[in-house]
Amino acid sequence: MKLLQIDFPYNGVMGREMAEAFDELAKSISKEKGLVFKIWTENPQTQEAGGIYVFEDLKSLEAYLQMHTKRLESSGVTGIRSKIFDINETLSAITKAPL
Amino acid sequence: MKLLQIDFPYNGVMGREMAEAFDELAKSISKEKGLVFKIWTENPQTQEAGGIYVFEDLKSLEAYLQMHTKRLESSGVTGIRSKIFDINETLSAITKAPL
Repeated sequence: MKLLQIDFPYNGVMGREMAEAFDELAKSISKEKGLVFKIWTENPQTQEAGGIYVFEDLKSLEAYLQMHTKRLESSGVTGIRSKIFDINETLSAITKAPL
Repeated sequence: MKLLQIDFPYNGVMGREMAEAFDELAKSISKEKGLVFKIWTENPQTQEAGGIYVFEDLKSLEAYLQMHTKRLESSGVTGIRSKIFDINETLSAITKAPL
């Protein structure tokens, strides 16, 4: 499994309004090849948003990252920070990660 | 629930060796007040490591972050990037997040 960490400056709607606005997008993301899960992140104080994704493999992750970066940029988002990590599954199991 | 995203430059052991080296630390972290889970992240190519944490509330998260930052710095880690986020639980549920 591979983890993708994305965050970016964001001054759009958050909370319940964001959930309504991005309901269809979330349904689409849930069907992405190789996706295990996405946690949606938002911070109204710092005006940032992003996501923590777990994918089954690097190939699926990289394909998604390329597509999603273009999608974000086409909606006006700049300053996207993305990082790819391996998951240490042994240590994560000790700290109760639901993987 | 609140999410804490931490990453930093790291040139120590990873993988199985990291799991052995940090076994006791992981057991200690698993008992931290308010912790829901931690996913341990590592990237041998970029020489970075970190963690994705979910806490029950902001107070527990902030207490942990302060303690953990000092612990990392005392072991020689510099350049720690930490970000705190709300979790959009509605959208995360659609994208299969195990929360």
